[in-house]
Formats: sequence, structure tokens, C-alpha cells
Amino acid sequence: MNNFMDKDFLLDTETAKKLFHDYCESLPICDYHCHLSPKEIYENKPPKDISELWLKGDHYKWRAMRSCGISEDYCTGGITGKAQFEKFAYTLQYAIGNPIYHWAHIELQKYFGIDTPLSAKTADDIYERANKAIEEGDFRPQSLIMKSNVKVVCTTDDPADDLNYHKLLKNAEGFDCQVLPTYRPEKALNINLNGFAEYIKELGRVADVEIKSYKDVITALEKRADYFNEVGCRVSDHSFDYVPFSTATNEEAEAVFEKAMNGESVTREEADAYKTKVLLALGEKYYELGWAMEIHIGAMRNNNTAMFKAKGADIGFDSVGDDNIAYPLSRFLDSLNVKGKLPKTILFNLNNKDNTVLATMLGNFQGTEAESKIQFGPAWWFLDTMDGMTEQMKSLGNLGILGKFVGMETDSRSFTSYGRHDYFRRIMCRLIGRWVEDGWYANDEEILKEIVCGISYNNAMKYFNF
Amino acid sequence: MNNFMDKDFLLDTETAKKLFHDYCESLPICDYHCHLSPKEIYENKPPKDISELWLKGDHYKWRAMRSCGISEDYCTGGITGKAQFEKFAYTLQYAIGNPIYHWAHIELQKYFGIDTPLSAKTADDIYERANKAIEEGDFRPQSLIMKSNVKVVCTTDDPADDLNYHKLLKNAEGFDCQVLPTYRPEKALNINLNGFAEYIKELGRVADVEIKSYKDVITALEKRADYFNEVGCRVSDHSFDYVPFSTATNEEAEAVFEKAMNGESVTREEADAYKTKVLLALGEKYYELGWAMEIHIGAMRNNNTAMFKAKGADIGFDSVGDDNIAYPLSRFLDSLNVKGKLPKTILFNLNNKDNTVLATMLGNFQGTEAESKIQFGPAWWFLDTMDGMTEQMKSLGNLGILGKFVGMETDSRSFTSYGRHDYFRRIMCRLIGRWVEDGWYANDEEILKEIVCGISYNNAMKYFNF
Amino acid sequence: MNNFMDKDFLLDTETAKKLFHDYCESLPICDYHCHLSPKEIYENKPPKDISELWLKGDHYKWRAMRSCGISEDYCTGGITGKAQFEKFAYTLQYAIGNPIYHWAHIELQKYFGIDTPLSAKTADDIYERANKAIEEGDFRPQSLIMKSNVKVVCTTDDPADDLNYHKLLKNAEGFDCQVLPTYRPEKALNINLNGFAEYIKELGRVADVEIKSYKDVITALEKRADYFNEVGCRVSDHSFDYVPFSTATNEEAEAVFEKAMNGESVTREEADAYKTKVLLALGEKYYELGWAMEIHIGAMRNNNTAMFKAKGADIGFDSVGDDNIAYPLSRFLDSLNVKGKLPKTILFNLNNKDNTVLATMLGNFQGTEAESKIQFGPAWWFLDTMDGMTEQMKSLGNLGILGKFVGMETDSRSFTSYGRHDYFRRIMCRLIGRWVEDGWYANDEEILKEIVCGISYNNAMKYFNF
Repeated sequence: MNNFMDKDFLLDTETAKKLFHDYCESLPICDYHCHLSPKEIYENKPPKDISELWLKGDHYKWRAMRSCGISEDYCTGGITGKAQFEKFAYTLQYAIGNPIYHWAHIELQKYFGIDTPLSAKTADDIYERANKAIEEGDFRPQSLIMKSNVKVVCTTDDPADDLNYHKLLKNAEGFDCQVLPTYRPEKALNINLNGFAEYIKELGRVADVEIKSYKDVITALEKRADYFNEVGCRVSDHSFDYVPFSTATNEEAEAVFEKAMNGESVTREEADAYKTKVLLALGEKYYELGWAMEIHIGAMRNNNTAMFKAKGADIGFDSVGDDNIAYPLSRFLDSLNVKGKLPKTILFNLNNKDNTVLATMLGNFQGTEAESKIQFGPAWWFLDTMDGMTEQMKSLGNLGILGKFVGMETDSRSFTSYGRHDYFRRIMCRLIGRWVEDGWYANDEEILKEIVCGISYNNAMKYFNF
Repeated sequence: MNNFMDKDFLLDTETAKKLFHDYCESLPICDYHCHLSPKEIYENKPPKDISELWLKGDHYKWRAMRSCGISEDYCTGGITGKAQFEKFAYTLQYAIGNPIYHWAHIELQKYFGIDTPLSAKTADDIYERANKAIEEGDFRPQSLIMKSNVKVVCTTDDPADDLNYHKLLKNAEGFDCQVLPTYRPEKALNINLNGFAEYIKELGRVADVEIKSYKDVITALEKRADYFNEVGCRVSDHSFDYVPFSTATNEEAEAVFEKAMNGESVTREEADAYKTKVLLALGEKYYELGWAMEIHIGAMRNNNTAMFKAKGADIGFDSVGDDNIAYPLSRFLDSLNVKGKLPKTILFNLNNKDNTVLATMLGNFQGTEAESKIQFGPAWWFLDTMDGMTEQMKSLGNLGILGKFVGMETDSRSFTSYGRHDYFRRIMCRLIGRWVEDGWYANDEEILKEIVCGISYNNAMKYFNF
Repeated sequence: MNNFMDKDFLLDTETAKKLFHDYCESLPICDYHCHLSPKEIYENKPPKDISELWLKGDHYKWRAMRSCGISEDYCTGGITGKAQFEKFAYTLQYAIGNPIYHWAHIELQKYFGIDTPLSAKTADDIYERANKAIEEGDFRPQSLIMKSNVKVVCTTDDPADDLNYHKLLKNAEGFDCQVLPTYRPEKALNINLNGFAEYIKELGRVADVEIKSYKDVITALEKRADYFNEVGCRVSDHSFDYVPFSTATNEEAEAVFEKAMNGESVTREEADAYKTKVLLALGEKYYELGWAMEIHIGAMRNNNTAMFKAKGADIGFDSVGDDNIAYPLSRFLDSLNVKGKLPKTILFNLNNKDNTVLATMLGNFQGTEAESKIQFGPAWWFLDTMDGMTEQMKSLGNLGILGKFVGMETDSRSFTSYGRHDYFRRIMCRLIGRWVEDGWYANDEEILKEIVCGISYNNAMKYFNF
């Protein structure tokens, strides 16, 4: 029996141990997609206790607690501190097989020096020890980022954002990490959601463009992309519940835009007409700027109307959709490619049924702008599990070129979540180690080193030009 | 090499062996969903021979035989006894990897004391020995149920049923097992199938409700639910080929109902208008009664028209559908939840491509009425295999709280199928045992015992309030 | 650590080694579906060098190279010889987990006697040694086929083809392999593609039928099927991007046909009306001829418009679709079955999300014409990987009768791709060997031998009546 989550956690062959400990473990982190707050990084305030650090904004943990029948009071409802921590510890005990269980223990070990398994009966003791560590140590955001050896952090930002904190962070003393914005024009695309018209006005104001047509939206977005580029942005991000693709005319798109600006509701097909026009224009812009375009497909958000009305978005009431994506995604990428304007693109799926579709879609549109110009993004959100990551890497290995994979990002809102890179690298070394020891791949240490260091860090730095 | 299906079958670590043999093996069975006949249980007649016991009503076995090119004569066609058993034994020999192979051998061991592998060459010998065991032993339904240590059996019943046998069984002497009805209002929902209008009249008669509107259907169904509740029912069951969800008005639903009662055919969209109204009303009723609502999604039934016309339903001509389910299922559950009337719910999928959708859907609608109020049902029917069960538990583990899982039911029509609980528990202990021995989960025997006993028996008893 | 791809490659138990080496390894090959050119087989010309042999027409390798950022010049663009080989070797180094990596090394070992792993640093040396082997040995198509112990090759042919090379090959001296045509009426079905009307005229000319109606198309196709049958054809092949099924009337189908013949474009629904009529008529004809009908589902072809315009089809710009297939496939098969005219059928899926749908669809329509009359085809194209093959066999094992599986075909355009049968048999013996050693299946050597030899060769020869 292996020890519980010791230094060789997940490394089940000698090759895996060697690859991880000799090469991957000490590499820096390139976190090319996350939801950290640049304001919080800049303000750099320490947490009050482990409950605040862990349970203040983490919808993964709230979902788990709710699944144990725990009242909302202990999630978003205001009960904090020890009572809240005890409920989480109770939950964790039953979360066998869940990455939260591993993440929590990795963080306890890495940041707090605590090796004891967390459960209902150890909750109070660990709560005290963790808080002592917080009190005596340095758990401010910048310290956690540096302690985690993170060289690049790409936050997620609205085109109308002034990026003030990104600018301030460039000169933050003693903070050796690039914090770069990511361009996510979600509000400018969601023409069928409330608040669209107001947002468009705000966007026009910030971009200094009078917006009378959807073409003006594009102009405003392009101007903001230029601004983001100046501040260091190299990545855009899009979240698609389904993949929109429409062959509607400019006139039809314009009519939809006018309806929405007049406060009328638009259908899904109408929305797609507008979205397709804007997305294709943005794709060209990203190509010209040399950016990578991230596309996250398949989240079905805010399913619980009662909780959405009471507490808003991003609090753990999202799940995985199952729309058919192959055809519209092919047509969207082809529309850019046929014009010679397809940017570097990273495709992420939230439903693992789409692994084969994405891993084969890549091969249709590769180019010479980068090695594996079209990437299969790492297993993300609900798939960010041992099984999800392994399946994603097997799919990419089977159907594409795993050795050129840009690897992991955190997609997280938490400053202690960098342990997930450790988790990812162990799983990657486990998979490759097994292939080597089973005689499937030549045991050439020089080549293996290049591959595992590439997937851990080097491929991403090269791909994004950081 | 391991011995063939010995006492440690499927238990490939010391932890798995310990968890199974010390804790799970001797626990009773809570069979919260099956298709056993309460009449047959009450009448308690012994089988004539092993062919009758195994091959009289088992569409799993008929399908397998047909897949070996065996004529219908040996399935539903009238050939019984030794000749039929020989054909099945021939089939089993080629059914490598099929759970039927394991189920058959578990049953031979458990009920007949026969350890010999069954194949064409051992068929006659085993036929004789099994029949001798039947002759000398007690293979009546009640004995088989008690020998299997089953404490609760939930049969599947129509709302118009008088539940007479359930009442009789309450006082059956020497029979220490609760046989409870399950409320399955399928015929009242299938407005697009032949016989709907006749069924509705029968339902009205039994419920003493004059049915002139779909609202009267609801009234009648509610009255029958109250009656079922009195007789001990705690569970409802629904089978969806796809997930119906419509935003049609009451008037539209009423018009559809009138068409159907006049014998006119209705479209899928029309049917959905009616179904949605009735389902939402039933959901509220289940909530008020404190019942659990089972939803089985994805069976595509009676594909073979020739055989359906010749022999009817439920004889092995069903397969797995692939409709998209995420959006309508989310809207259906949300419609009940937003009114505060979502009952405890168990979601079952027949297509494993839906595992991620279901395992994440749960988290949108949990509540404090029960731990894991919304459950991911165990791998069922075509997924009731080693791989299917393992995948379902991994999905639930990755995405929900496996430790609160209500575990296995048989979904069976056979009195010897209780060996499937043994099979399930071994697979569950195998999975958890590996996680522990790989150092993924803390080796805390007290907690592990609670988890494996919970999944085997305790969680279900608590969840359903049996 | 196992040696790199030695004689026991993939065979991880003693049982697997025994089954493979004692029984499967030396069996002949029945390649019941491939894309080899009968003309090239007949002309029997040796390749110039390993680059021509490997890289002249292999879109798998081109895709891999493009995914490493390599320019089209080295794929279809004209650069050949050593420079091209070096680019491929560079690519292969990063293709960890990809079957191309294994296929290449199996071929190096089997046909060239080269055991060195291929990578950038060994490229030049291997290029020289391989070319020396070609120069000194016999790498002509017929020799490669005979060296690979292939007894049957089914090529893929248009109904308008004269099958001249098949006839010539019947009398090719010293060539002990049946090269049979396969009937693939794709052009006669693709009513919505350019060139349809011209093709139909050509078909009419060849069949000596004046085509004025879609019914005449059927007559012409039936005549050509008779001709193919005379030349030895026993198999038809269909490729469906989605599964067409329409309940349109004959008149509607006729109207669609007339539109298409007049050069007007037809919608997907219109095309389906025509396709369904023709497919059902063909199905009946195949039944009457005793042929097997292969249906390949789910390829999304020619996604890259720029490359399609520049270079045409079948050059590596295809990927996997995700249409819902269960319902139309059920209706199509049932329409033939209800008339008693469903031929032997092999269902292939390109998206592994469809494994459960296909593996359960089989059971709806079995018959006595053959053991496992309806077959689940082996993992194909993008799924022709270790994981894809294992999943397909597990699905078939779980849900059907694996022991009656017709096993592997190459689906290849390359004369050295017969190593893929070796790969398949190793994976099959690995899977079955594990089941036996884990005590899941009885260790009866006689039965196991029959099963593994059946899946390797015997089942196919019997199923197709070769």
C-alpha cells in the first residue's frame, strides 16, 4: 500500500518518478487562463483564516457541501470561521474520488505544512493549525503566487476594463510575475441577455466610438483589443454554451442588433446571426495581433433560477451541456481559415463526450504560425480531475501530437490553487511513465525530458510568446 | 493467475477484500427498484427446472442467444427444458466480457452450489445438477428473497393497480421482507401511444374521478398517489425515451388532451405540452408526500416492429437512445425547484455519454431534505456491467459526493438476480480499495467502513425512509 | 520495465502471450475492407524509397506533420526523399500515444528488420537502412501482401467501375490472395454534391439503363450489383456523415431527383428522401445476394475549404462528427427487417460516444442467417488506436457476443499497413488475457483458442462466406 499522498503521489512507475522529480517538479508555472482578481493581487491583503482563504469564493466547495445536505448558511449564507470549516471537513470525508479531496490535501501540505487527512474528526485541530500558519506566515496573494513559482498569470477581463491594476502590478516591487489581461468580450456577444444595450453604451463610451450599428461594436472591440495588446494581453477568451454559427447576412445581423438595442428580446437564431458576425471579425483581429483565441465550450450556466435571483452568477449552479458542436465549430474555424485569418486557437470542452470531436477538429486547421497552432485545451472545470485529464491527454495523444501540448492552466479564483499544476504534472508523468515502462514509447531520456518539460511549461511560453 | 470467480472475485487489493468481506458481504439488500411480480411473490410457486427459472422471462438472455444466431424457438418460441438450456450454454461460452456470464456463474454458485464453468460441453451435466438442487431445495420466490437477505423490495406498479398482493404480502407468514409498490404512471403520460384514451377512462373509474380535462387526470393521479402512499409506497418511477419539456400554456395542453381522447394522433411537441403539465403536477405531489422520484432516461423501445407485433413489449428488442438531455432536464427540475417543490430525485441514464451531464446536474438542485437529495442513479440495464458501474461511480466520485450514494437496485424480473448486489459491492470495494492503496484516499478504517456500508445499504434505507 | 516494442509488445500476461504466440500470430489475414488500389496491386511496382512508400499517399502522416507546424511542402507539396523523411521523423518523436508511432515501428521491424526507435536524431541513419532494404529486397505490392499472409483483400469500388484489375488479378501468377471488389455506391447517393447528374448519366451508360427516374437509378445499381457479384463481390460499403432516414413518399423522392438532375441544389431533408428510397432498395438487393452491408457512420469530411479547393479530398482534413444516430439508424434497419430483407450488416462508428448506441442496436435485429448477423465493426480510422479498439471490444463484450466478432480490417491505402492486424490481435489477446487471469472468464484453453482464432480470422471467413 502506498502512503497517503506522499512525495510520490500518483507516480506509479520509476520512470514517472524520475520524470516528475528530476524535471517537472521545479519548473515554473505559466498560468495562461485564470479568474484571479488583479485588484486583489495588487492590494495583497492576507486572509483572516483558512475558512476565508478556502470558503469565501470557491463554488466548487459550496457545491460539494450542498451535495451533503448542508444548508446555504454555511456556503454563501454568512456563517464563517470554525463552524463553516467543520461543515466543509464533514463534506470532504465523503468526497472520495473528488479532486477537491486531493486539492485540499495538496494545499494543506504545500502551503500549511499539514500532512493529516482532513475529516470531521480532525477538523478542529487542522483549523487551529492552519490558522496558526496563516498568522505566523505570509499568505498574502503575491507571496502565494511567488511561493508557487508562477511566472505568468493571465486574468480574465472585460474589454471595457481600464486594466489599471495590471498597469500598477507591472511596477509592484518585489513581485516577480507577469500579470497580464485576457480579453473576454462576453457581454458584447450576449445579445440575448439582460443588460446588453447598457453594456454596449458603456463599451462605446470607453472606446470613444459612437455605436449605431453592430459594425460599430466591432470597431469599438477592435480599439479595445489594441489597448489590451498595449498592456500586454496575448490571449482572448470566449465561453460558448453551444457553438453559434449562422450564415445570415449583414442586414439580418443589423436588424437583430437594432432589436436588442431597443430592448426587444431576440431568439437564439437571431442572436447567432449577430454573434457570428462579431466573432468572425474578432477572430481576424486576434490573428492580426498574434493572439491566441481560447474557446471554452459547453457550460450550461445558472440552472437554479431561485439561487440566481437570490445570489447571482458563479456560485456553483452551473453544469455540463450536451449540444452537438462538430458542424458549427468546423464552419466557424473554416470561415476564418479560408480568409487566411485563423488565429492560434485553443479548444476546450466541458463535456468529455466531445473529446474525440475536438481532438480531431484540430487537425483540420493546423498551420505554420506555431507548432500545434490549433490546440486541444487541458481538461477544464468539471473535467479537471484525474480521469478527465488522463482522458484528454490520451485523446490528444491518440489523435494529435501530445508532445506539443501547451498543458495546464488553473481556471481558478483562488490563490492556493496552484497545487493543481503539481497534480496535473504528476498525472502527465504517470501516463507517460506507464507508456515508457510498458514498452510503448522508446526510453530515450533526452526526448522524454523535452516532452515532459514542454508540456509542463516550455510549450506554453513558446506558444503564447510570453 | 486468480482462480475463476472465487470468493475474492473482483477484489484485487487487500483493502478491497477487507472492505467487502468484513463489512459489505453480510449486509442486507434494499432493492428500491425492480420489476418482480408481487403476485408471483405471493403465490410462491417453485420453478419446474433451471430453464424455467432462467429462461422463461429474461430478455437479457434471449438477446444474447439471438446474437449467436439461435432461432426464436429457443427464446420466446416454446422450446424449453434441456434443449433450451443447451442453446443458452452455447451462447454463454462466447459471451466473454458480458455481465450475463458473471451473473450466471454467481447464481450457479450462490443458489445451486455449482462451481463448474458453464459452456456447451458442461451444459448437460449442469442442467442435471441444477435441477436436482431445485428438486431437493427450496427455490420458491419468498425463499430466494429471504436467502438473499433482502429487506425491502419496491415493485413497479400502475396507478390503477389495486395493490392487492402488496396488502396480502404484509401479512405473509414467515416472510420477513417489505414488498412495497412503486408508482409508475407511464400509461397516463404516454398520450401518443395506442390505448391512451381507454387507459384514462380506467384510471378515472379506479380513482372515482370523472375525467374531462387533463386537470382531472392530475386529480385522479393525485388520489391514486395518496392510496399508494397508504399502502407503503415511497418511490415513483418514470421512464423517458427523451426528456420532455414544453413551455406550452394550459390551454394548449388541454387541446392536446382533447385530441388524444378523441382518438386523434398527437405530435411529439403536442405530447410534450401535456406531459410537462402532468409531470410538474406529479413532482409537486411527490414532494408533498416525501417520496423520491426516479427518472430513467434514454431507452429506445420496441425497435423491431415485426417482433413487437408478434410478441409485444419487453422481450429484448430495446436499445440505447442518444437524444440531448441537458437543457430540458435542467428546465424540468428548475421548474419544480423554483416553486420549492422539487422532490428527492434519482436520475438514471442509459447512455454513458450522459454520465457527465447527470453527475453535474445533481449539484444544481441539492437541498437540505436529504444528504445528496438529488442522486445519480446506479448504472442500469445495458450499463449494469463492470465497466458501466465503475464509470458511474467514478463520475459521481469526480463530480459529486460518492460517499452519499444510495447504491444498487436490481431492476430485474428474476428472483435469482440478487447476486447482482454482490457483484456491485465487489466492484465498489475494488474501486475504493484501489484508491486507498494508491494513496489517493486516507486509509481510515472507521470512515471507509461507513462509506462502503452506506453505499451498500445504509444510505438507501435512510434516503427513502424505509 | 518492458523492452521497447519487442516480441511481447502489449502482451502483459502469460495468458495473453500464450494466446497470441501459440494461436493468433501465425493466422492469415482476411482484410474485408480497405482502400488499396487493384491497379497498383496488379502493376506491382516497387517503391522508390521509404518516403514514397510511407509518405506519398498517407493522410494520417500528413496530419501529424501539419500538427507539428510543418509546411505543406513536406506533405502534399512536392518535397520528397530524405528531407521529407526527416520532417516525419521529427514529428514522430512528439507523437507519443499516437498509433502512428506504433505502426511505424511495427513496419520498420516487420518489413525492414530495423529495431531502432525513429526520431529526429536517428532519421538519416534509418532512411539509409530502409532504402537499402528496399533496394535489396522485394517491396512490390504483391510481395508485401503475401509476406503479410493476406488471403482476402476487399477493395472499395464504384458501381460504374469495370473491375478489370480484379479480373486480371484472378489469374496473376504466383499471387495467392483473393482480391475482391466492394460495392460502394456513394456517388449515386450523394445527390446534394456537385457532379451528381453527370455521375448518374455515366452509371446509366455503364449499366445500359436509360435513367429518367430515381427508380431507374435503383435498376441500374441492381444490375451493377449483379455484375459485382459475378466478379466475386460479397460486401457493400456505405459512408454516412449522419444517418439519413426519411418517410417521404415516392413522389417526393422523384421530385427531388428531378431537381438534382436539372442541376438545382437540394436541401438535406430533400436529399434524405432520395437517399432513403435508394438505400432501402439496395439493402434488399444485398439481402438477396447474401452480401454483408457495411455502414461507416460519422466522418465529417473536407472541413478545410482552402485545402479542398487546392488539393481535393482524402488528404487529411476530415474529422469526427457528432450527430444523433440512434433513432434514424433504428428506423432504417427496421424498415428492411420488417420486410424480411435485412442483410448481414456491420455498423461502424467514428465517434466513440456512439459505442453504446451501436453495441445495443445490434441486438434489435439479429437473425439466423449468421452468428451475430448484425456486427459491431472494429474501431476504425480515428478510433483505430489502442484505446479505441479496447473500448470497442469492451462495449461489444459488455453488450453483445464478443466471441462471434468478425474482427479487424485495415481500412488502409498502404501496402505495409498489415502490421495493424498484428497490433489488433495483440490488443485483443491483452484484453482477453487479463479477463482470464483476473478470474473473470474460465481458463479453458480449448474455448479460448476458438474465440481468439475466431476474432483473428475464422469468424470473418465464415461470416462473409469467403
